[in-house]
Amino acid sequence: MTKKKSASQSQVVMTEMVLPNDTNTLHNLMGGKLMHWMDIVAAIAAQKHSNRIVVTAAADSISFKHPIALGNVVTLQAQVTRAFNSSMEVFIEVWAEDIPANKKIQTHRAFFTFVAVDQNGRPIEVPEVVPNTPEEVELFEGALRRRQLRLVLAKRMDPKDAVELKSIFNLDEKPEKKK
Amino acid sequence: MTKKKSASQSQVVMTEMVLPNDTNTLHNLMGGKLMHWMDIVAAIAAQKHSNRIVVTAAADSISFKHPIALGNVVTLQAQVTRAFNSSMEVFIEVWAEDIPANKKIQTHRAFFTFVAVDQNGRPIEVPEVVPNTPEEVELFEGALRRRQLRLVLAKRMDPKDAVELKSIFNLDEKPEKKK
Amino acid sequence: MTKKKSASQSQVVMTEMVLPNDTNTLHNLMGGKLMHWMDIVAAIAAQKHSNRIVVTAAADSISFKHPIALGNVVTLQAQVTRAFNSSMEVFIEVWAEDIPANKKIQTHRAFFTFVAVDQNGRPIEVPEVVPNTPEEVELFEGALRRRQLRLVLAKRMDPKDAVELKSIFNLDEKPEKKK
Amino acid sequence: MTKKKSASQSQVVMTEMVLPNDTNTLHNLMGGKLMHWMDIVAAIAAQKHSNRIVVTAAADSISFKHPIALGNVVTLQAQVTRAFNSSMEVFIEVWAEDIPANKKIQTHRAFFTFVAVDQNGRPIEVPEVVPNTPEEVELFEGALRRRQLRLVLAKRMDPKDAVELKSIFNLDEKPEKKK
Amino acid sequence: MTKKKSASQSQVVMTEMVLPNDTNTLHNLMGGKLMHWMDIVAAIAAQKHSNRIVVTAAADSISFKHPIALGNVVTLQAQVTRAFNSSMEVFIEVWAEDIPANKKIQTHRAFFTFVAVDQNGRPIEVPEVVPNTPEEVELFEGALRRRQLRLVLAKRMDPKDAVELKSIFNLDEKPEKKK
Amino acid sequence: MTKKKSASQSQVVMTEMVLPNDTNTLHNLMGGKLMHWMDIVAAIAAQKHSNRIVVTAAADSISFKHPIALGNVVTLQAQVTRAFNSSMEVFIEVWAEDIPANKKIQTHRAFFTFVAVDQNGRPIEVPEVVPNTPEEVELFEGALRRRQLRLVLAKRMDPKDAVELKSIFNLDEKPEKKK
Repeated sequence: MTKKKSASQSQVVMTEMVLPNDTNTLHNLMGGKLMHWMDIVAAIAAQKHSNRIVVTAAADSISFKHPIALGNVVTLQAQVTRAFNSSMEVFIEVWAEDIPANKKIQTHRAFFTFVAVDQNGRPIEVPEVVPNTPEEVELFEGALRRRQLRLVLAKRMDPKDAVELKSIFNLDEKPEKKK
Repeated sequence: MTKKKSASQSQVVMTEMVLPNDTNTLHNLMGGKLMHWMDIVAAIAAQKHSNRIVVTAAADSISFKHPIALGNVVTLQAQVTRAFNSSMEVFIEVWAEDIPANKKIQTHRAFFTFVAVDQNGRPIEVPEVVPNTPEEVELFEGALRRRQLRLVLAKRMDPKDAVELKSIFNLDEKPEKKK
Repeated sequence: MTKKKSASQSQVVMTEMVLPNDTNTLHNLMGGKLMHWMDIVAAIAAQKHSNRIVVTAAADSISFKHPIALGNVVTLQAQVTRAFNSSMEVFIEVWAEDIPANKKIQTHRAFFTFVAVDQNGRPIEVPEVVPNTPEEVELFEGALRRRQLRLVLAKRMDPKDAVELKSIFNLDEKPEKKK
Repeated sequence: MTKKKSASQSQVVMTEMVLPNDTNTLHNLMGGKLMHWMDIVAAIAAQKHSNRIVVTAAADSISFKHPIALGNVVTLQAQVTRAFNSSMEVFIEVWAEDIPANKKIQTHRAFFTFVAVDQNGRPIEVPEVVPNTPEEVELFEGALRRRQLRLVLAKRMDPKDAVELKSIFNLDEKPEKKK
Repeated sequence: MTKKKSASQSQVVMTEMVLPNDTNTLHNLMGGKLMHWMDIVAAIAAQKHSNRIVVTAAADSISFKHPIALGNVVTLQAQVTRAFNSSMEVFIEVWAEDIPANKKIQTHRAFFTFVAVDQNGRPIEVPEVVPNTPEEVELFEGALRRRQLRLVLAKRMDPKDAVELKSIFNLDEKPEKKK
Repeated sequence: MTKKKSASQSQVVMTEMVLPNDTNTLHNLMGGKLMHWMDIVAAIAAQKHSNRIVVTAAADSISFKHPIALGNVVTLQAQVTRAFNSSMEVFIEVWAEDIPANKKIQTHRAFFTFVAVDQNGRPIEVPEVVPNTPEEVELFEGALRRRQLRLVLAKRMDPKDAVELKSIFNLDEKPEKKK
């Protein structure tokens, strides 16, 4: 399949309010609930890029630094960064907003991977991703390195073959930003 | 705090049935729902070790290889592997079972990290973990290496200081097993 | 309060997947579930405009023409059109998308009204809305007419005082559009 | 179809307790959740009248005057007022009750419209409604006027053809009552 | 407290639709979900009789004979039968209705017991129940016998003191009826 | 079918956290929610014994003595006690744990009955249960007596034929224990 689609065509924005059942004893959003939302928004982005049914293949490491309080509005934005045959890496950014207090902070940046499948669940090729902005280009290029780390951690690649991975010790991704 | 507790005292078993709202278009469990369950079972294990309120600090990379079907019974078992001051690493194993077909497979092995906090959300020290079985010892020893990877990925440790991490290129953890 | 905010500052986008429990016997989204989502996205828009807690004051008539199927992705976009002291009218547009079939249609245009309140639930004044685009200006102007209809239907205004309302018999709002 | 059924045969009573996840920051029932319940109780009334699958066609304007608190018991009563070929108008009354305080007030009166459909989703004729009590007769007669307003608001009727609608400026429905 | 209230003042009717997440692999309502609904409707009846907060004290044996299918409408009716100081026995009848097929059957008759409590959870006396209809009188009289069975089964009464219980071997309650 | 399986092969452990929506006005777990969990864990035990689809046939009397608070961890353990052709009795024990307070108490012991069915919902024979421990033997022997009580209460056995039931007036089951 030689079809190509620009990265931004897959962009999805999801907004959720933190309700009582989503919170722990300290009245903050439970990590597992946030991962559930990340999975849904990222799956929709992968669907939009591929126009296919998609299944989650991997969730990369996520660190939880900022508690998100009951009543906060959580915004999740997802966009495909790069495709590898039938798999797509999706970049997810999360913001938490205390609207009455007029405070909004970026709380997470995460990567999930999805595989496009046909009605019988068999992998099927997807369009290539065309990155356009500098940020999209950077995410596109880093995708190879993250893919090698994923394969090494899942023991499906021998670390000595992970040529790109070495640069992980030399990361220069942009720091998290406020929006 | 000099108190020590054996790893197995924190063991928790959770059992869930895959219901319609947990599934995607192919009638398989959504990855995000499974991560939500992992977070809950692991939080309970961390609570049992620390007798404290705990908050999720990190979820390590998870890969999804085996689809889990509607109606399957999912068993999650969690146990603390090692403590670092106020943080605890929890090891989670997941099995999916199609009971009428008499088939049970291990589908996931994952690591989550939690921090014990007081009523104001401030970190508080937890007991040390005493590993007893050979598997617990191996998990205890690997915890340091995984912690360095977590810190490097979260950009909170300089890769050149990650002495233990180098061994990740030389992993010898036990392969996944059936139960 | 003389503060003014442009209409677009309140814009909120929400994305939902239609899950089994959201559907009726024909496997289409239940009307009540959609109204529940409309209420949430519109409340967030009203919160963003006012930086206050808001409560639903009215939902205008909604007609359901297009069934939305299980598995569809529903996008809701909300934006404040005009403020009247402590109350705000919010305009909501809804699109349903069958992504594998590459079909997206606009299914609904609706108006909800919210009141900003303080911690004791008492109404409190909100900033004026500044419309900028031609569509925002049209929505701003129509708000007065819709407000009179709302008051007449709730029997809180005598129809003979509803000067603007007469123009409802002469509506020239833009027809629904695809996006 | 010449079959006729009396209005009261479709009566349905639904009772719900307001639980934490149904409430907003002020611990009052969210408007969207109430509309969701209205849709379900009214759909059951329309099913009972038609003995068919029904789909929501319209929800008339609803105004929210009385906050309903966490722990309150909400009673919804629905009954078909009139049928037009395949469509049925349903009248819904809502009461909120703080039982320990021994207070019950009527909070809403609303109208929803449903269409009876066959297994393929095609509209199908329903029995005529026979109103018996004075209140049922009044609701039956007002149905024509409300239908014209609905069609004008949905831009499916030219206002100058809405003969009955003029009387909306001269409403004499009974005021809301306590039960 | 010498206050008395007639049994029928506590009557509550609840209506639920069987949704996908309420069903088992055969697409029938799960027994546990039905017991959950029984508990809620019966708690509201006990609240109405006592105008107090109530907590579940016991659920008597329930047998499940008739499967209730996805899409069925379930009607639950509850009414207090008799009070014993701070406790109240509630009688619950359940009907399942397949409306398009025009079939309604009574599926369950059950008894739950509740205790009225004050804000600190301490038991508090409730009004006596006055039975009026022959059915209410029969339920009132049987309540003593069922209470003794409950106490014996909970090992809080010595069977040889259960004078009324002997008549359980000679039950003459009315058979289940259709409505 | 002459196949036999030991009782312990059907053992299932389920762990749940009490979340806000599971609780009543006193912030304690609602009885109906606990019965819902009991039904699920017991159904899984019956599935494991029979390797069949199972449906709930009966829930024996349950008394609620200990309130279980919001945030508590609830552990349910279920195991088949005895089989009668196509039906299985399941014994369920429930513990509630306030982990930060280091308190765990056994709150319930209950019996549910399930019937194994084929894909058309027709009863189908299951393996015999082999009890091994003294507790399993005691539960196995008591099953006959509880079955007779169940049949008498459901009016499907004449009390004078309930030979074993007489011993209910002479119960010597072990008292509830802490774990």
